[in-house]
Amino acid sequence: MSLLDDLIEAFRVLPGVGPKSAQRMAYHVLERERAGGQRLADVLAHAVETIRHCERCRDFSETDVCTICASASRDQQLLCAVESPADRLAIEQATGYRGLYFVLQGRLSPLDGIGPRELGLDLLDRRLGEGLVQELIIATNPTVEGEATAHYLAQLARAHRVRPSRLAHGVPLGGELEYVDRGTLSHAFGSRGEMP
Amino acid sequence: MSLLDDLIEAFRVLPGVGPKSAQRMAYHVLERERAGGQRLADVLAHAVETIRHCERCRDFSETDVCTICASASRDQQLLCAVESPADRLAIEQATGYRGLYFVLQGRLSPLDGIGPRELGLDLLDRRLGEGLVQELIIATNPTVEGEATAHYLAQLARAHRVRPSRLAHGVPLGGELEYVDRGTLSHAFGSRGEMP
Ligand SMILES: [Zn+2]
Ligand SMILES: [Zn+2]
Repeated sequence: MSLLDDLIEAFRVLPGVGPKSAQRMAYHVLERERAGGQRLADVLAHAVETIRHCERCRDFSETDVCTICASASRDQQLLCAVESPADRLAIEQATGYRGLYFVLQGRLSPLDGIGPRELGLDLLDRRLGEGLVQELIIATNPTVEGEATAHYLAQLARAHRVRPSRLAHGVPLGGELEYVDRGTLSHAFGSRGEMP
Repeated sequence: MSLLDDLIEAFRVLPGVGPKSAQRMAYHVLERERAGGQRLADVLAHAVETIRHCERCRDFSETDVCTICASASRDQQLLCAVESPADRLAIEQATGYRGLYFVLQGRLSPLDGIGPRELGLDLLDRRLGEGLVQELIIATNPTVEGEATAHYLAQLARAHRVRPSRLAHGVPLGGELEYVDRGTLSHAFGSRGEMP
């Protein structure tokens, strides 16, 4: 197996990259983007080594506590739970939200062995127990598992006398938050309702 | 700009990767494929550093002369000119061809400043002058520029009393060789005809 074969194989670790596009990536970098390829290699190695999870919100962070959690200008009474860093980014970019986040890094899925512990809900439990948070905005995806997770989170919030809310209808059913257009997401976020 | 932003930006060097898929790649690697990401970084850095062009055929190679050119079991009388390493690989995988290759790494395109020198045709000229090659199989793509390149190569071959041939009809017009199915490519290769 040649180094070129190794490179093609290595590209297949990326999502949605099959044998043919892995080959195109390898050839493209070697033919036209050696400097960019070297940079990708450097940044990737550094990122994989350095980027970990924020101790407060579980989002990606280069430091123990991420910049959003460390910011004095964010509203400590609002906490928004999302499934992924991509969802966190989508809300941050689309809405004027100035509260804090909690990134589940998944959703409840007992069949896949993903329970409360895997989603860091012990951490969330302690966080809600601190007494600062007044409202837990539950922004899990409107899928079956996302809804089940939302109900679990709502119960957890109520146990701490924190008001759970859910994004308003507007987010398409079965859709992934990450792909919702900004306008829809912003509207849904703004008109979120208390969970029944 | 965070390291995560740097990583997303760095992925955009890959072909067909826009902002959204670069973001997905970064998150996917950090969430689920740290070991694979580390491996990709290592192999990519090594490949960009190590892989160069074969002195004989201009294909990618880790050594001065690639394994095909160095092989004693290949027929030295047959030389097949292709536009890219991907085309070379496609022919090697689809056909039973046992001759050698010459990889142009492009096609004649005067408007883009790609002339005979950029395609290494001085090297091909010397190669044909060595007297070993009897037939030059011209497997450039059936595009306007590919055809112009084919005619140029045919003239070069004839100047050295080498017989030029062209893949038989069967390769779809305007198509890219790399994407032709194996059966069609194998048939076209087998029934190649002398160039008119
Ligand atoms: Zn944080
Ligand atoms: Zn070679």
